[in-house]
Amino acid sequence: MLLPGAVDLYVGNPDWRVFAMTSFIVAGLALALILATRGPAPRPSIRLAFLVVNILWVTLSFAGAMPLYFSSLPIDFVHALFESVSAVTTTGSTVITGLDELPPGLLLWRSLLQWIGGIGVIALGLFVLPYLRVGGFSYFRIESSDIEDRPFARFSTFSVALVTVYIGLTFLCAFFYLVGGMTFFDAVNHALTTLATGGFSTHDASFGYFQDPWLIWTCTVFMTLAGLPFTILAIVAFRRQTDAAHDPQIETYLAILVGLIALCSIWLILTEQYEPFDALTHSAFTFVSVVTTTGYATEDYGNWGPFALLLVFGAMWLGGCSGSTAGGIKTYRLIILWQSFVNNLKQLLFQRIVAPIRYGDRVVTSQMEKGVILFIASYVCIWLILSIALAATGLDILTSLTGALTAISNVGPGLGTLIGPSGNFHTLSDTSLSILIVGMILGRLEIATVLMLLMPLFWRR
Amino acid sequence: MLLPGAVDLYVGNPDWRVFAMTSFIVAGLALALILATRGPAPRPSIRLAFLVVNILWVTLSFAGAMPLYFSSLPIDFVHALFESVSAVTTTGSTVITGLDELPPGLLLWRSLLQWIGGIGVIALGLFVLPYLRVGGFSYFRIESSDIEDRPFARFSTFSVALVTVYIGLTFLCAFFYLVGGMTFFDAVNHALTTLATGGFSTHDASFGYFQDPWLIWTCTVFMTLAGLPFTILAIVAFRRQTDAAHDPQIETYLAILVGLIALCSIWLILTEQYEPFDALTHSAFTFVSVVTTTGYATEDYGNWGPFALLLVFGAMWLGGCSGSTAGGIKTYRLIILWQSFVNNLKQLLFQRIVAPIRYGDRVVTSQMEKGVILFIASYVCIWLILSIALAATGLDILTSLTGALTAISNVGPGLGTLIGPSGNFHTLSDTSLSILIVGMILGRLEIATVLMLLMPLFWRR
Repeated sequence: MLLPGAVDLYVGNPDWRVFAMTSFIVAGLALALILATRGPAPRPSIRLAFLVVNILWVTLSFAGAMPLYFSSLPIDFVHALFESVSAVTTTGSTVITGLDELPPGLLLWRSLLQWIGGIGVIALGLFVLPYLRVGGFSYFRIESSDIEDRPFARFSTFSVALVTVYIGLTFLCAFFYLVGGMTFFDAVNHALTTLATGGFSTHDASFGYFQDPWLIWTCTVFMTLAGLPFTILAIVAFRRQTDAAHDPQIETYLAILVGLIALCSIWLILTEQYEPFDALTHSAFTFVSVVTTTGYATEDYGNWGPFALLLVFGAMWLGGCSGSTAGGIKTYRLIILWQSFVNNLKQLLFQRIVAPIRYGDRVVTSQMEKGVILFIASYVCIWLILSIALAATGLDILTSLTGALTAISNVGPGLGTLIGPSGNFHTLSDTSLSILIVGMILGRLEIATVLMLLMPLFWRR
Repeated sequence: MLLPGAVDLYVGNPDWRVFAMTSFIVAGLALALILATRGPAPRPSIRLAFLVVNILWVTLSFAGAMPLYFSSLPIDFVHALFESVSAVTTTGSTVITGLDELPPGLLLWRSLLQWIGGIGVIALGLFVLPYLRVGGFSYFRIESSDIEDRPFARFSTFSVALVTVYIGLTFLCAFFYLVGGMTFFDAVNHALTTLATGGFSTHDASFGYFQDPWLIWTCTVFMTLAGLPFTILAIVAFRRQTDAAHDPQIETYLAILVGLIALCSIWLILTEQYEPFDALTHSAFTFVSVVTTTGYATEDYGNWGPFALLLVFGAMWLGGCSGSTAGGIKTYRLIILWQSFVNNLKQLLFQRIVAPIRYGDRVVTSQMEKGVILFIASYVCIWLILSIALAATGLDILTSLTGALTAISNVGPGLGTLIGPSGNFHTLSDTSLSILIVGMILGRLEIATVLMLLMPLFWRR
């Protein structure tokens, strides 16, 4: 909070007082909590881990909402909380209009929150969820033996390497944006939200403000990178083991992107909406943005016709790789689902158990396979329930269906006139926004982490 | 074909010649096939069973399409095939307009096809899919020991009992329709398509032609009955073992119906669209019609507002009980999914295997549990793929999404102006209809049965 506060003070914006005040409040509350909970630390347990993850995201969301709420922005608390949750979950849906005229401190605060959320998401996907085995994640468990083995000598070195790659790519991205002609402030903000696959922009027109192929392609490349597993990026960057990139989820992730971009480009060319190069540019940007769950838009793809729209709708489910900042179902689950389906056909045909499923050179246990498929089925159920809840608040069908989806997949924009790429979430009621807040948190924490807390058994001694 | 032919001859409609001709063609082809394949029967095998089920439904569809194609109706072959597939899969989507003026032979042919499809569906769900273990169905496997044990002395007695219940309920339904004031012809046709949970009507306005509470409630009751497992109906009817009705899927099925009807009634009353009794009548009819995948409509629920529409959309996934004529995901799968989800939460919390899932008094094996969840996940994938394919033919988003869903769930109408409850599928192109044909067959044969044939391994010696 001190950083955007300093920026506001520098440009002479009165909001610097808000940042100063909220940082004092947060520091004071933190200190009070530390003092109130002195004594021996609680015994680490699975239950505690689940609780901490939930508390962490909720606390960060409330802290992030404070400067927005107390600032000169004319928004109520639910709107401020929505914006903050959208930031820390790296979703990127916004309720703020007139971004182009907003004071720089607030803009930077939004981008920073999203960037910090991105680090949180990577840590969650690498160090927390795999140990909690949520959503079939345990495959990506990094055993200490793995780390000590080859890639990195110690756990701490590994964490430092990950953060370094994240920061390094952010700098590199900002540099390329600067070279492409962005202002320094725009370059920094967009680099922060590109690497977080968040998608907050400093302009109401989102990335469409920059109608420049260099910038669009730079963004496309860095979003694609941010959708890759950061473990593997770290290994490639620090150990130069380029063969680490031969990962099943990376290959599938890139294949899916190429397939979607090709289909949409052909559609845009056949329907004569764009020249071939523009069709490729905008398809590539859009589908990379949606699959990595970033949510920037260059064009209003709401006008691209039903086929392109349904491709986008389909892409909103997918998500990037595990260990990235992307949300959604994620590529490795799609790989396991596909293999599970084919294996099931073989089992039906031969009426006996067949060879186990493999992921790379590891065997996927039946337990993990079930976890993955169960995650996908739960994902759909949650989506349907949230959609119906949104419709109960009076939203139309398309807004309800895609609003719920964009929330749990942490994409950003939905489809339709209200919340589509050229829309804004500020028109939604507090009730609708509250449902979307629940959706964003559910999706980010991979459903089970949150629903766990609703189980009476969880609270029993 | 001879029955509708006789009816057309009786009323003096020239289409009787079409029925006579097509019955000769079909009989001739059947005879030729019998003669061509004389010799020892092939050794029964799983592979053969899968092949036969597919061939059966495809053959029935082509045979059913013939009278429609050669008749005085101005439709091309794809439209005729669509109508026939819609009949034998008990879907009930129609491409024929001007039903009120159609010759009685054709109307009876559509209803009969659907009714025969209904018997096929019951047989499939009780005697075929459980043995092939498709979609986690093996739970409902009727072991010969079960049959010999108590309910019925022999397998053949059991089959006769099932068909008797189906025929008996059809007669009873027709009787109540007659009492309520339907003409004899309307009563017979609607009874045939009510018990088949098909939903073909003899009027363009579907069941809305009869604006009479008695008829609407009669239909609601018989649709509800047709969504129950016919095994249990047979046991209750012939053995008077009413405790057989204490089945988990029946309880859940009825609870889901009551919940949906209550929610929609409250919405319709709060939004002041209907008086309380009418709200209840139309909600009950609509949700029973959708959940049992019948597809009749009394009112254009397309105008009930987004909440009611999304409830209908959600209901289109559900389906009735296993062993009924209903399509969709089916209640027992929802029960197993829910239990699997709760069990998974417990496993995550305690990090060890917990008590197995139970269905009634039986234990659900892990294999079966996986089969059920995999079915649900595949269902969603197939839905998304078919939706995108439909959008590629130029249909709008809502028509594509609900068209694909109504096809795989075998409901009948979708949502939107084109294929909604007051629409008709005749406006769709041959390509769109072909995609829907694939969807209806996939849904009816529970996905894996059909996709099995696409596996190269299936065809290898």
